[in-house]
Amino acid sequence: MSSQEAFRIEYDTFGELKVPSDKYYGAQTVRSTMNFKIGGVSERMPVQVIRAFGILKRAAAEVNQDYGLDPKIAKAIVQAANEVAEGKLNDHFPLVVWQTGSGTQTNMNVNEVISNRAIEIMGGTLGSKMPVHPNDHVNKSQSSNDTFPTAMHIAAAQEVNEVLLPGLKKLQNALEGKSKEFSQIIKIGRTHTQDAVPLTLGQEFSGYVQQIKYGVARIESSMPRVYQLAAGGTAVGTGLNTRVGFAEKVAAKVAELTGLPFVTAPNKFEALAAHDALVELSGAMNTVACSLMKIANDIRFLGSGPRSGLGELILPENEPGSSIMPGKVNPTQCEAVTMVAAQVMGNHVAVTVGGSNGHFELNVFKPMMIKNVLNSARLLGDVCVSFTDNCVVGIQANTDRINKLMNESLMLVTALNPHIGYDKAAKIAKTAHKEGTTLKEAAIKLGFLTSEQFDQWVKPKDMLGPQ
Amino acid sequence: MSSQEAFRIEYDTFGELKVPSDKYYGAQTVRSTMNFKIGGVSERMPVQVIRAFGILKRAAAEVNQDYGLDPKIAKAIVQAANEVAEGKLNDHFPLVVWQTGSGTQTNMNVNEVISNRAIEIMGGTLGSKMPVHPNDHVNKSQSSNDTFPTAMHIAAAQEVNEVLLPGLKKLQNALEGKSKEFSQIIKIGRTHTQDAVPLTLGQEFSGYVQQIKYGVARIESSMPRVYQLAAGGTAVGTGLNTRVGFAEKVAAKVAELTGLPFVTAPNKFEALAAHDALVELSGAMNTVACSLMKIANDIRFLGSGPRSGLGELILPENEPGSSIMPGKVNPTQCEAVTMVAAQVMGNHVAVTVGGSNGHFELNVFKPMMIKNVLNSARLLGDVCVSFTDNCVVGIQANTDRINKLMNESLMLVTALNPHIGYDKAAKIAKTAHKEGTTLKEAAIKLGFLTSEQFDQWVKPKDMLGPQ
Amino acid sequence: MSSQEAFRIEYDTFGELKVPSDKYYGAQTVRSTMNFKIGGVSERMPVQVIRAFGILKRAAAEVNQDYGLDPKIAKAIVQAANEVAEGKLNDHFPLVVWQTGSGTQTNMNVNEVISNRAIEIMGGTLGSKMPVHPNDHVNKSQSSNDTFPTAMHIAAAQEVNEVLLPGLKKLQNALEGKSKEFSQIIKIGRTHTQDAVPLTLGQEFSGYVQQIKYGVARIESSMPRVYQLAAGGTAVGTGLNTRVGFAEKVAAKVAELTGLPFVTAPNKFEALAAHDALVELSGAMNTVACSLMKIANDIRFLGSGPRSGLGELILPENEPGSSIMPGKVNPTQCEAVTMVAAQVMGNHVAVTVGGSNGHFELNVFKPMMIKNVLNSARLLGDVCVSFTDNCVVGIQANTDRINKLMNESLMLVTALNPHIGYDKAAKIAKTAHKEGTTLKEAAIKLGFLTSEQFDQWVKPKDMLGPQ
Amino acid sequence: MSSQEAFRIEYDTFGELKVPSDKYYGAQTVRSTMNFKIGGVSERMPVQVIRAFGILKRAAAEVNQDYGLDPKIAKAIVQAANEVAEGKLNDHFPLVVWQTGSGTQTNMNVNEVISNRAIEIMGGTLGSKMPVHPNDHVNKSQSSNDTFPTAMHIAAAQEVNEVLLPGLKKLQNALEGKSKEFSQIIKIGRTHTQDAVPLTLGQEFSGYVQQIKYGVARIESSMPRVYQLAAGGTAVGTGLNTRVGFAEKVAAKVAELTGLPFVTAPNKFEALAAHDALVELSGAMNTVACSLMKIANDIRFLGSGPRSGLGELILPENEPGSSIMPGKVNPTQCEAVTMVAAQVMGNHVAVTVGGSNGHFELNVFKPMMIKNVLNSARLLGDVCVSFTDNCVVGIQANTDRINKLMNESLMLVTALNPHIGYDKAAKIAKTAHKEGTTLKEAAIKLGFLTSEQFDQWVKPKDMLGPQ
Repeated sequence: MSSQEAFRIEYDTFGELKVPSDKYYGAQTVRSTMNFKIGGVSERMPVQVIRAFGILKRAAAEVNQDYGLDPKIAKAIVQAANEVAEGKLNDHFPLVVWQTGSGTQTNMNVNEVISNRAIEIMGGTLGSKMPVHPNDHVNKSQSSNDTFPTAMHIAAAQEVNEVLLPGLKKLQNALEGKSKEFSQIIKIGRTHTQDAVPLTLGQEFSGYVQQIKYGVARIESSMPRVYQLAAGGTAVGTGLNTRVGFAEKVAAKVAELTGLPFVTAPNKFEALAAHDALVELSGAMNTVACSLMKIANDIRFLGSGPRSGLGELILPENEPGSSIMPGKVNPTQCEAVTMVAAQVMGNHVAVTVGGSNGHFELNVFKPMMIKNVLNSARLLGDVCVSFTDNCVVGIQANTDRINKLMNESLMLVTALNPHIGYDKAAKIAKTAHKEGTTLKEAAIKLGFLTSEQFDQWVKPKDMLGPQ
Repeated sequence: MSSQEAFRIEYDTFGELKVPSDKYYGAQTVRSTMNFKIGGVSERMPVQVIRAFGILKRAAAEVNQDYGLDPKIAKAIVQAANEVAEGKLNDHFPLVVWQTGSGTQTNMNVNEVISNRAIEIMGGTLGSKMPVHPNDHVNKSQSSNDTFPTAMHIAAAQEVNEVLLPGLKKLQNALEGKSKEFSQIIKIGRTHTQDAVPLTLGQEFSGYVQQIKYGVARIESSMPRVYQLAAGGTAVGTGLNTRVGFAEKVAAKVAELTGLPFVTAPNKFEALAAHDALVELSGAMNTVACSLMKIANDIRFLGSGPRSGLGELILPENEPGSSIMPGKVNPTQCEAVTMVAAQVMGNHVAVTVGGSNGHFELNVFKPMMIKNVLNSARLLGDVCVSFTDNCVVGIQANTDRINKLMNESLMLVTALNPHIGYDKAAKIAKTAHKEGTTLKEAAIKLGFLTSEQFDQWVKPKDMLGPQ
Repeated sequence: MSSQEAFRIEYDTFGELKVPSDKYYGAQTVRSTMNFKIGGVSERMPVQVIRAFGILKRAAAEVNQDYGLDPKIAKAIVQAANEVAEGKLNDHFPLVVWQTGSGTQTNMNVNEVISNRAIEIMGGTLGSKMPVHPNDHVNKSQSSNDTFPTAMHIAAAQEVNEVLLPGLKKLQNALEGKSKEFSQIIKIGRTHTQDAVPLTLGQEFSGYVQQIKYGVARIESSMPRVYQLAAGGTAVGTGLNTRVGFAEKVAAKVAELTGLPFVTAPNKFEALAAHDALVELSGAMNTVACSLMKIANDIRFLGSGPRSGLGELILPENEPGSSIMPGKVNPTQCEAVTMVAAQVMGNHVAVTVGGSNGHFELNVFKPMMIKNVLNSARLLGDVCVSFTDNCVVGIQANTDRINKLMNESLMLVTALNPHIGYDKAAKIAKTAHKEGTTLKEAAIKLGFLTSEQFDQWVKPKDMLGPQ
Repeated sequence: MSSQEAFRIEYDTFGELKVPSDKYYGAQTVRSTMNFKIGGVSERMPVQVIRAFGILKRAAAEVNQDYGLDPKIAKAIVQAANEVAEGKLNDHFPLVVWQTGSGTQTNMNVNEVISNRAIEIMGGTLGSKMPVHPNDHVNKSQSSNDTFPTAMHIAAAQEVNEVLLPGLKKLQNALEGKSKEFSQIIKIGRTHTQDAVPLTLGQEFSGYVQQIKYGVARIESSMPRVYQLAAGGTAVGTGLNTRVGFAEKVAAKVAELTGLPFVTAPNKFEALAAHDALVELSGAMNTVACSLMKIANDIRFLGSGPRSGLGELILPENEPGSSIMPGKVNPTQCEAVTMVAAQVMGNHVAVTVGGSNGHFELNVFKPMMIKNVLNSARLLGDVCVSFTDNCVVGIQANTDRINKLMNESLMLVTALNPHIGYDKAAKIAKTAHKEGTTLKEAAIKLGFLTSEQFDQWVKPKDMLGPQ
């Protein structure tokens, strides 16, 4: 952009500004880039929000046409908005998250881009606001205060449905497969990280399956309130300058365009002033993060070794593990999972703090909140896929090791309780522990039972369920 | 306890211990008090957990009788357990939260108290374990690993149903009443804490109503998984040493005793190794905390003054506000609400960290997790009642002040947009702002419209909804 | 309290109230118990705050005497305040944390108790406010707004110095002892939970020592700002109604009474309106919590077993571990440590949220903030002592196990890199892993080196430091 | 990259891979991009870490030359590393944060880029590993386990010194300027958001100054431990495969290159296994976030209006505030500040969770932790600058409004306490409040004093300090 020709002059109510010639955005966008130099490119408004705005602006234009907007203008807006929704104009959205807390500047960025693109479609001059005005036409019957939260909900719902839930379900399926595959492998259980009574490896994995299954349920149970849209509330929730029915029609149109069950929020005051629905969704993701942290921790510990760890699982080898230690393989997918889990817990606190600090008719932590919600959804969804493909599906049971540990275990003594009593059983366990022998050896040495009785009574496969 | 007679001698597998003569607990409880001198009396295991254990132990005894437990023993256990459930024996539970992470010592405390009390009922000698043994009879078919999480869920569900939800609903009703009462009072809206277009005070309160209403829904939507009980899983989730049907019958019995829809957990491995259900419930309470923080903040700011604040609300005067400033009244109930909200957010992080750190077949952050969940439920429920009774129901609208602010507001100019356009409207607002006049004065001075037109077009009551 | 005689009538500016005859508190305290029924007895204002108030009120009385307060009154206040400071009157402080956010009611509770006790000492009538008035005399030159934060800092500083730092130092010493004791024991290292190159067990423990040592430094580095007292700022920080020099003298007196280096806060506006110093201290404790979580996790995993875990450490057996599994021992002290760590992380978020939400001249999250700070300090200090006494000092190295794991390890192959190159070394490791043999066997089989060369080159004790 | 020619083939121990011809990275980098498709471009390893690696690799090469590395190779590495340090090769680092938790893949990415660039400099063939090998030369005497934490500390220290501290100090200066500018403006104080006794606007701002000043001190007090570098610890902290003195020399070289006081960490086991130093730094930033939240909240409330708010401050108008409400101006800089504060609080929890979950010789939350620490430092620093430039320096006092509120205030009655007593003063305040009159009118009407007495006794400027 070295030459003077690379700019055009645009105006907002504060004065004139140079706008790059090859960009559709206008003066208010440029002004925001000057006033909010915070964090740089990596802190830009998430593209999912921009695309959601494309959907919303298209829906609004179509509904506005029903209420009298010039069909030619509406058509151009729809086309331009579609391009935004499809991500074709992502380069035209330079604003960062750290702007006004209502997201007003991003709404204006969208209005400017769509109006200029629509003007271009209709053969007009960029920046002329003719024949498509960013406020009067693109933003018609709207305010940043209702459009931004609407875009938040659309973006969150799409990310949940396109990334998070598919990721979770894929992981659930993979874990279910492993649970079945491992259903006959009896292993030592561990409580307090200490040896305990046996269970099958399949049972152990069934706990993970249940956690993820419930994770899906948790996410889904928080969605009804995310499917409620603020559009139609305009500046403070009253719907000033909209028409009766506008809110409902826009929500229906958005539902049609996305295939998701959006409805208009029953109370627009709540929908602008609070973002409890996103705090709730974030809370559900926080619970999922706990589940994933637990599962990934288990898998890396069960797969620890190869010689000095628990060694019950053999994890896929995906890459060289060490530049200094030849042959080292690390549970790197588990590490990505647990790092994501920690991030989601942190994001959740950011969302919570933002959600609690709304004032009067408007919560002004909107961009920060949606950034974190989208980040959590994306990272969780992606990491589930990565973890599944690069780890879970390739997990093998190290049956030799599992059998060895199980057979050596002192906790099998629990099976003797009904036959010789807790006290004698304890004596056997303590003797074997002290002398480093097997339970059977200790039991016979102590004279509490015969070899045959031991074999008959101590059967791990009889210890896997109620009787 | 100065005399030697005040103790009896009891034994556990680690040796003999002195037990206070007037206490029902036994050796393992005493040993725990010696090993865990952490935090003192205020850190004791919440009484709700103890009482929940009473319910569980009664239920287990009744089911065990079905499976062959001597009816005389069962009857004595039931009677003793009932006393625990009713809170009559609270003094016999000295253990702190900061013990073993499975809550084993509290389970043994319960077993010891119930067995000794049952022994007493049956005419035996305290500490003799005859005829009612703490492990063999009171803990029959149970393990700490399944009983403690069962007691956690019972306690949480009861606290939610007896304290949290009634508190929330009471507050919702009070806010609804105020919303109706204030439905005709038109006031200035505020976005970004700045003057905006009008709404009714009733509309403003309707947003609060919606937040609390959804709060109830959020809590309720997390309960299905809290109603699932781990009982029957015993040590690692397999149900070793229980009988087929035991789990289901115990859950049914607990449901009967509590009137709450408890069922047996479909997967006991998950129920012991993870406490996602409590993380989820805590997440729902965290969302409620955000709602309450927002509402209480609004109310104290709207009630700020009496002379130099916003002054739109008159809050009840409950106590002298200052020892140094005569006549000062403070929004103390709002302060209690916001402090509780902050606490609940903190508790939620503690629950999250604990919930994410389970290993293998057992999560060992159980006592800490339930302490925080119960604390959040109790504080939220109590503070809703206090806030309702001592503040919300007594809130009055300061209509003179509200009218004055509304009529002076420059943002009413928004109503002129359709008639004279955004630019001229802006000019009126800026002129009035600069010169300190009313909009009407500025509008007429600028010659954009007549006095009659202004009166006809700028009607706050026409700005309260879509057209 | 069934009879009428059990009450006396007192008044505040809101009317008359019944006060229990056997209590020193007065009308404002009773009123607060009626207005704030939140959480119950376990939620009372921490006794450390009450005792700190005793110190402050004594100091203020002595300074006020310098400025003209009747010496007889001052003397009686000093005596009564001393009793409060010594904890003799704890039963007279029934108020909960969840009250006004400035702690005004607790300040008045203190004023009432001290004035009534001083009246009693001087032979007057309880409740008469004669000759010692709660406001005019006990609260002279003070406001809740400066006394409560002063008491917060005194209480926090004392808890840190009496409980937290001694606990940390005790643990540091015990870990240092173990580090030296284990300095010659060479063991396998673990990175990513997987086998890595060796280090000594003493080196491993030296990392824990360093963490705790730095923990002490972190706490200490946050104390200078905790040692600054708000006293003298009165209502808004200006010091209205105090005398020049009062603030400095009170701080000096408190320093004298406590033996801690308290000074007057250089800026009283900050000292009332923000509690960043406590957020900072809480942040230091949060870091300590991370250290403890790491150490306790390591110790329980290194001590896992006895047969199916890592088994390198033998942890003290403190109590029966299981009612169902004979002979089971659990790392219960580690569990208490990690639960406390999670709680401290949660408390820290509560403190953070409270600390961020002050408005104008006063932060009104005071009681909640100090409750959490004191709780964190106490729990961390206590659990360090418990962990040290009941676990750390008794830890033994399982040298047979440690040697076995170390010698079997494949990662010793790293020592061959300089001699035969990374690629051949990797081949040896992979062959040994695949065939389940030792490195030496694989190396010789592959013909890369001789038995003698292997013994010469692969010496774990040469792998413990730079060369 | 549509043509086959756009790739070269490289190998790692897992097989061959296609590497884009125009990139310096190699096989291990490509493999990581395949295994970790998590989050996309916006989740890339922060460029500050990459640049810090450039510094470290240069330092290591120079030190390695001292220990015998071929000077020609060392020189080429130094040149290439310098380019990395200067950010010239940022496009060659495609890996995301969500990879292995040790950052091994980023270390290898750096090694590959530097070796290939050095090969290019020396006239060799990309991918040939000749004459500069990524492991043997670039990574010489290093392991990911010590280089990554070293790069973390370098990056954090630089961001703190280049962005965070300058930002804070700039804000501190601006607030100090305002505090002086406003030193003679007497205004009403507010406690509990309610009217209180007066202070000067300069005093109010002096509290903000103190908060930021202490914020600087807090950050600085956490830096000594950040300045400690892990380099020289290699795989597990022992320094295996390094030379005596290597650690100290590398730290000295890094100190020289950066101008920051880096030293070698006294205990490398702690430096690899824990990242408490970053948790501590994050805690300091969390405290700063609380300060900023408080200050920005105050400023937006004090600037609320223009007609219906507190209106004591006039904030700069930076952009159009509303597309629907003409003339609306919003405190958008305050909103950016408070959003950043919430983010930093969330980041802190992520760092805390990661910091608490290290195991044995290695913490594997490294990339996540440094991402959050850098994000907090950058956002806080940037937002301080933005807030200062676009808001603080332009803040004006609305003296008419301030005077009006102050003179109308009922709390000035406090000044009458010494003259007519608290009770009569309270009566005056309550009468004036009830009847809507001034204090003076009420006082005279009640006959408690004369007009002259009122004027003499009620002087706000006498209420600004102790007497």
